[in-house]
Amino acid sequence: MSTEPLAGGPPLEPVPELSAAIARLRLVDHHVHGATPHDLSRREFEELITESDRPVPEWMTQFESQVGYAILRHCAPVLGLDPHCSPAEYLARRARLGAEEVNRRLLGAAGIGHYLIETGYRGEEILGPSGMAELTGVPADEVVRLESVAEQVAASGCGAAAFAGRFAETLWERTRTARGLKTIVAYRYGLDFDPAPPSKEEVAEAAGRWMAGGGRVSDPVLLRHLIWTGIERGLPLQFHIGYGDPDVDLRRSDPLLLRGLIELAEPSGVPLLLLHCYPYHRQAGFLAQVYPNVYFDVGLGVNYTGARSTAVVAESLELAPFAKILFSSDAWGPAELHHLGAELWRRAMSRVLGGFVAEGEWPAERALRVAEMVGAENARRVYGLGVEA
Amino acid sequence: MSTEPLAGGPPLEPVPELSAAIARLRLVDHHVHGATPHDLSRREFEELITESDRPVPEWMTQFESQVGYAILRHCAPVLGLDPHCSPAEYLARRARLGAEEVNRRLLGAAGIGHYLIETGYRGEEILGPSGMAELTGVPADEVVRLESVAEQVAASGCGAAAFAGRFAETLWERTRTARGLKTIVAYRYGLDFDPAPPSKEEVAEAAGRWMAGGGRVSDPVLLRHLIWTGIERGLPLQFHIGYGDPDVDLRRSDPLLLRGLIELAEPSGVPLLLLHCYPYHRQAGFLAQVYPNVYFDVGLGVNYTGARSTAVVAESLELAPFAKILFSSDAWGPAELHHLGAELWRRAMSRVLGGFVAEGEWPAERALRVAEMVGAENARRVYGLGVEA
Amino acid sequence: MSTEPLAGGPPLEPVPELSAAIARLRLVDHHVHGATPHDLSRREFEELITESDRPVPEWMTQFESQVGYAILRHCAPVLGLDPHCSPAEYLARRARLGAEEVNRRLLGAAGIGHYLIETGYRGEEILGPSGMAELTGVPADEVVRLESVAEQVAASGCGAAAFAGRFAETLWERTRTARGLKTIVAYRYGLDFDPAPPSKEEVAEAAGRWMAGGGRVSDPVLLRHLIWTGIERGLPLQFHIGYGDPDVDLRRSDPLLLRGLIELAEPSGVPLLLLHCYPYHRQAGFLAQVYPNVYFDVGLGVNYTGARSTAVVAESLELAPFAKILFSSDAWGPAELHHLGAELWRRAMSRVLGGFVAEGEWPAERALRVAEMVGAENARRVYGLGVEA
Repeated sequence: MSTEPLAGGPPLEPVPELSAAIARLRLVDHHVHGATPHDLSRREFEELITESDRPVPEWMTQFESQVGYAILRHCAPVLGLDPHCSPAEYLARRARLGAEEVNRRLLGAAGIGHYLIETGYRGEEILGPSGMAELTGVPADEVVRLESVAEQVAASGCGAAAFAGRFAETLWERTRTARGLKTIVAYRYGLDFDPAPPSKEEVAEAAGRWMAGGGRVSDPVLLRHLIWTGIERGLPLQFHIGYGDPDVDLRRSDPLLLRGLIELAEPSGVPLLLLHCYPYHRQAGFLAQVYPNVYFDVGLGVNYTGARSTAVVAESLELAPFAKILFSSDAWGPAELHHLGAELWRRAMSRVLGGFVAEGEWPAERALRVAEMVGAENARRVYGLGVEA
Repeated sequence: MSTEPLAGGPPLEPVPELSAAIARLRLVDHHVHGATPHDLSRREFEELITESDRPVPEWMTQFESQVGYAILRHCAPVLGLDPHCSPAEYLARRARLGAEEVNRRLLGAAGIGHYLIETGYRGEEILGPSGMAELTGVPADEVVRLESVAEQVAASGCGAAAFAGRFAETLWERTRTARGLKTIVAYRYGLDFDPAPPSKEEVAEAAGRWMAGGGRVSDPVLLRHLIWTGIERGLPLQFHIGYGDPDVDLRRSDPLLLRGLIELAEPSGVPLLLLHCYPYHRQAGFLAQVYPNVYFDVGLGVNYTGARSTAVVAESLELAPFAKILFSSDAWGPAELHHLGAELWRRAMSRVLGGFVAEGEWPAERALRVAEMVGAENARRVYGLGVEA
Repeated sequence: MSTEPLAGGPPLEPVPELSAAIARLRLVDHHVHGATPHDLSRREFEELITESDRPVPEWMTQFESQVGYAILRHCAPVLGLDPHCSPAEYLARRARLGAEEVNRRLLGAAGIGHYLIETGYRGEEILGPSGMAELTGVPADEVVRLESVAEQVAASGCGAAAFAGRFAETLWERTRTARGLKTIVAYRYGLDFDPAPPSKEEVAEAAGRWMAGGGRVSDPVLLRHLIWTGIERGLPLQFHIGYGDPDVDLRRSDPLLLRGLIELAEPSGVPLLLLHCYPYHRQAGFLAQVYPNVYFDVGLGVNYTGARSTAVVAESLELAPFAKILFSSDAWGPAELHHLGAELWRRAMSRVLGGFVAEGEWPAERALRVAEMVGAENARRVYGLGVEA
């Protein structure tokens, strides 16, 4: 990992030994997607380093953003370039090396010990768990997206009355070796849904409406049903929260809207993992403190805030007990995002925790302990991954 | 107070003279509860250093949190231990000293000049105002919780039609020497209540429903009536806002929801004090700037963010005029929380205000003036406490 | 500009060359009002350095606030006084120099290259665009407030059925040389309005109701109509968002409420500029990332957070591409606010961007590039101002 300071710059970390130990940690990336095996044009690359789904306006470049600057800074050295080279130099080098070598280098330098790969979004364009495991040489297990399973069931031509049964059956089958489930109810409806499980009749009726109309599953009755079936399945359940692409109504993506569901799901013992959460990560920290079944991370928000990710990570270390915070990159596509997720998180933790140590608030051992918990140990416990091989 | 830097650590404060002056301030803790006179088991202790009301899961300890680390860091030296000792060492030492000696040491080192003690929550388990005054040797006055008075009136077997009269009578009697009132409408309903005073008929009807059903007062009509009766009583009125235990729906606890009430109450001249406010403290600062009758603190949020409380205090020093910000600990039970509230606030103010001075933005005298206002002077003026004896 | 450190103080900026370059930038203040040409009593002055519209309570002074301290620190030297002089000394000096000389000095030292002056608020009390251009010697163009135009049309005695036509006609006429439009729908109703353009019949009916009742325009149907007519006009459209005077219900001023309108307006290509946004500036940054037609600034929030404005500016540099962030002061009245807006922004950018450079995250040239974009270039492109003369 490229943790050496720029020539002539000041020291990057308040406590170098702590930073070095954090740099050596083998992380569990508990919510990530595959890397793309394809070479990318400049247009394609720029469209993959933003959550916008609109074309990049001709008067701007996505490289002039926090994530763009961070890619140049932290990924260029991994490809053998000076940090802070130009976008054109970077992309030319990337093209010359080819996607496979780029992926090998960037993923190799990320220091991940275990990937939990969510396969529900445009999975045919990127590497799946086995491809990621092969490329990186570390275990890569699957997290299954509830909405994708439901849409496969619908596409297979199932009747409305049979939907609930067929969904459950397919979900159990699809998750035989999966480590977790994921829901994107935040995208498809919002988090302000009725938290109670719907009745069989409601589900059949909603399934009928959906199948007649077609399209993605977005009926709140059905989405609730998927979630409750997921809770019954019993695997840790990830929720997209907060920041994401423009499909999300960010206002209806505040994790506090999940309070009712959290309380109803509490007796099941199923861990609920709130992903990203920006700009509601303090609200997520509150939920993680008061409810034993709630966990959270600041995933996607770390990459996209670049040099400011230190502040975001710092804000995530407030109310929640340290056993309830996890690490993820939420990378999808360019391996730069997989690499940056780990690199920026290590830098942020080094600076924030090192700051606590330097201010005399924490001893260094406790700082390292928190980094180990958040970086790997909590995920290993929640998902039952065992100790690293 | 344990403000000495750890051996070999960097200086803790940007402006040591300012920090020293802040360390000497005699604070007014304008919203606090009593310390527990009982010894505490590890389980009991851990359950009192979180806002969660759930048992601590067996795979975690509340000591691995910001408040846990802060207790070890700042309270251990007061009990004669090294900072950052282990939880087991800390609790063993605590047990050996006994609750009385622990309370004496921790409260004594907190540097409080006047306590305003809210007695409405499980008051029988903790010291009351007289017990606190005796233990600390400084004045301890009472803040009366409106909902507790209402529940005492109901428990005394009052009829629905007589409720309003009996409540007013009891409130006047109970507050003869009180300094303030408190409402927990945020817990019992939410802050999104109709701000207007209810009619006599509505109150009687709601009282009838409540007395028939029993339980805690949670009807919004009654809660509004308590608040308006409190405003009529004329004492400064504290509102629980934001962060608290899982009874609170944090989403419905945004202080901006009080706008209607604030405007209706403005002509009364009664000071409205918004407590804690995390993560909505910036919203509270806005209200404190634009409405003359609004004040706020970041009470509970300071203890529970530990090494991050500097950031929370900094964010509280933005929009509000400095005459509108107060200090409180909101401690309940273990005297560690009373001690930490003061200690972390002093450290945060030293660092934040010292930072303004070090950056050349404020002269040191103005920084100290703000610490004096927030730490004591504003509360002395609002509650009519006079100058310190 | 007074960027010299106080005698004996530590260095103010992590990268002095960057700070010096930022100090030399000629900014475009893309949302500002005129300076007052009148001398001000202490009462008048204090009432103009807060967003509160209430009298200043006798137990406090607005000088004891972030903006008050910042005025003493940064404006006193421009008037030839020591920084951190007393309010009385400051105001005595101000009175002795007279408003014209005070304006000349403070505006002259602000380093603005182009003003975009919003004329819709109490414009008769302050300098207009031509007065500002004359005083400062730089171009000052107009931004026209939609609601003021509508109220002028109504005041001219127009019938309900004719309102829409007369409003459009007057708007086109009034904006012949204007650079932009502004709406204060946040003040008059809230941002939670139906985003679709109303029908002709709805507009005529609402105009009839309004003209019968009189007063300011606050009917959401009419406000929507003004906005959609503004979008048809095609000039960049500014929205008051977030922090402001107590007329605003801050809770209904979250920019995320504009999502529907943003999407409906997207095909028009009209730039939507979200002003101030505090405390919702991270939400604004999200919108600016995912929607090509959204821009934002932290205008008013910079002045009123004073020594804390560094944090606010830092938080504005997270999700949005740097081509989507602008600078404004939103000053109205005392030229201190015009001066501070620029001065505090330069200091904040110097410290935040300089911090990224010092930490090895960004090269200094990229930091300066971002300051140039946010400070002037983006506004020049959006408003078609051309390069500086």
